[in-house]
Amino acid sequence: MFSERVNRLSGSLIREILAVAQRPEVISFAGGLPAAEKLPEFDWSQMPSDLAQYGMSEGEPALRAKVAQHVNALGLPCSAEQVLIVTGSQQTLDLTAKLFVDPGTPVAVEGPTFLAALQVFRFFGAECLGVPLTANGIDTEALEHTLKTRKPAFVYLIPTFQNPSGARYDADTRTQVAALLDRYHVPLLEDDPYRELCFDDVESTPIASHLKHAPWIYTGTLSKTLAPGLRTAFLVASPELFPYLVKLKQAVDLHTCRYAQWQAAQWLGTEQLAEHVAGLGGFYRERRDFMQDALQRHFGDLATWSKPEGGLFFWIKLKLDIDTRQLLPKALEQNVAFMPGEPFFPVPEQGLGYMRLNFSHSPQDKIEEGIARLAGLVKVALMKQAAPAEAV
Amino acid sequence: MFSERVNRLSGSLIREILAVAQRPEVISFAGGLPAAEKLPEFDWSQMPSDLAQYGMSEGEPALRAKVAQHVNALGLPCSAEQVLIVTGSQQTLDLTAKLFVDPGTPVAVEGPTFLAALQVFRFFGAECLGVPLTANGIDTEALEHTLKTRKPAFVYLIPTFQNPSGARYDADTRTQVAALLDRYHVPLLEDDPYRELCFDDVESTPIASHLKHAPWIYTGTLSKTLAPGLRTAFLVASPELFPYLVKLKQAVDLHTCRYAQWQAAQWLGTEQLAEHVAGLGGFYRERRDFMQDALQRHFGDLATWSKPEGGLFFWIKLKLDIDTRQLLPKALEQNVAFMPGEPFFPVPEQGLGYMRLNFSHSPQDKIEEGIARLAGLVKVALMKQAAPAEAV
Repeated sequence: MFSERVNRLSGSLIREILAVAQRPEVISFAGGLPAAEKLPEFDWSQMPSDLAQYGMSEGEPALRAKVAQHVNALGLPCSAEQVLIVTGSQQTLDLTAKLFVDPGTPVAVEGPTFLAALQVFRFFGAECLGVPLTANGIDTEALEHTLKTRKPAFVYLIPTFQNPSGARYDADTRTQVAALLDRYHVPLLEDDPYRELCFDDVESTPIASHLKHAPWIYTGTLSKTLAPGLRTAFLVASPELFPYLVKLKQAVDLHTCRYAQWQAAQWLGTEQLAEHVAGLGGFYRERRDFMQDALQRHFGDLATWSKPEGGLFFWIKLKLDIDTRQLLPKALEQNVAFMPGEPFFPVPEQGLGYMRLNFSHSPQDKIEEGIARLAGLVKVALMKQAAPAEAV
Repeated sequence: MFSERVNRLSGSLIREILAVAQRPEVISFAGGLPAAEKLPEFDWSQMPSDLAQYGMSEGEPALRAKVAQHVNALGLPCSAEQVLIVTGSQQTLDLTAKLFVDPGTPVAVEGPTFLAALQVFRFFGAECLGVPLTANGIDTEALEHTLKTRKPAFVYLIPTFQNPSGARYDADTRTQVAALLDRYHVPLLEDDPYRELCFDDVESTPIASHLKHAPWIYTGTLSKTLAPGLRTAFLVASPELFPYLVKLKQAVDLHTCRYAQWQAAQWLGTEQLAEHVAGLGGFYRERRDFMQDALQRHFGDLATWSKPEGGLFFWIKLKLDIDTRQLLPKALEQNVAFMPGEPFFPVPEQGLGYMRLNFSHSPQDKIEEGIARLAGLVKVALMKQAAPAEAV
């Protein structure tokens, strides 16, 4: 009865966990939700009434101009004519998949990568090829091997405070990746939702800005800095891709909500937003530091991890390769939610023992209590896993 | 470089015409835009601030409940759990195509039907099978033949003030169509954007309400009654389809803008909206009647048509089978825009000589002037077409 691709429509683990995590008694490290107390108050009083009419598929001209300024300031030259306003950067993934992916199309991604991206690309039939991450970003040798031998339709990267790993590509890796994409002429989809949630002073020029020949799509969002409820994000694309993306956008929903676009334009590029983001940074830095301490207290003997310089997540690796998906039901029984790491890998079995822990959403007392409960569960699981070996 | 389906990404004729039609000197009968002077003033002052956070993919609970009430009142029983809020009913087309259509999948549609639906279904690879319309709705014998011989994945119908034809299925045709879909167990996608733009007292119970076994999706919108700029619409689906549609929605944009949903919930089901729609009806009725008179003055000898009981369009048939796509550039030269009828037919050559004329957007003096200019062009074209025959 259904299309062949519906067989690949995976039940979203995130969705199911978040449903449980919404119960007030649950301490949730699962989602990527902003802290409720840091959401902005919007002023709607100056809203022009002519926004009630249909708008342009590309987006509101005022917002497109501000996005172009914003992106130029990051070091990625573009004009407002290259900007497409989308209904969340999730929509960029849908449009890009439609543009490039047939059943069997190879797509290169980081291993691990954003779970919802894997799901969308696979839904359209992509074969997702995982390229390992190092401390400095993607493994460029492995990337070159994949580009050369598999000719992926595009490469999907999250170079700045990567989700889930928190990794940040250093400057050398960025230029090397760009040179490889140019050499093999493989398009880049660069996803950059977290760059402004930055707790330390770091360099993070978009990889797209280093490209000379390869087509590219760069996508950013106001969901993490301003308000996810607005569903307002953007993509910027090289000129050979842009016209297709506009037509694809038109076919999905004609255009993004004009009221949300107007509100976004009131903030983007303003001192007010800069102050708001600085405030967010300070607030999240405290929560990160608190969770770092809590992890050291409870997970010091159980796992390893790097303190993230930005973003919303700790990415910890247990000292034994336990399948953390088995741990999840037990954690939920104890009213703690987390994201098992395995589904973030194109081959889940290569990601055994990883957990993603969000630090932005929970207050300190919940962080302490939740991490302690998780550590208790992990300890039991590690002992069970280790037991047979010790018995030898 | 691109996916195979991108070869089927048609340049949108509507989009190109609307781009020209936005020039202030152009009299446009092309789009389906509400009259600017009848757009509502929104009050945003009571907006709750917690809408800034991520919301549920299904939509805001308050709006889903109101949609369920609204749809129940139309005679289609459903619960709020069957309601999915979408970013314009265009999104329902995208989600439905994803759910059902592989390359080569047969889909039955009215001939003529909504151009953008044809485009979306074909983009995913559908073979669109046109079923002719009669004065009372779809030709049920032809529909049965198509259901029996081609087993379409679904049937897409606009039974109430059909776009582009303005046709309205009578009660008998509605129950017959439902019985056929039940008999052959073919899912229904019922698109109902115009039902409230009704100028005469008519019966129009949704076809979905008559179904006993066949799966169904019913989609409605606030774009025509309230404000297209909100991009807020809904679908209601039978229980075996609903879970898939929610997952598909989540993969596109997570959820629809919560601010727009809140505003929509302030209006749906209220006396205020009923009054607004009644005012729209009166306003559009006057414009319809004025265009009817203008057509009689200028097109009386050139074309035939029915006066629409609702919706936004006249659908006129010229007395000779001219390809009206050839007429369009000449009309645009004279600063008049209209929609050629041919692209609304699955086989455009079967729709020669049709034109779709919007009556809602232009004031009376522009209607008179634009119709007169169009008639002048048509007269010349008809004479040219007729000339060779007369010379024999």
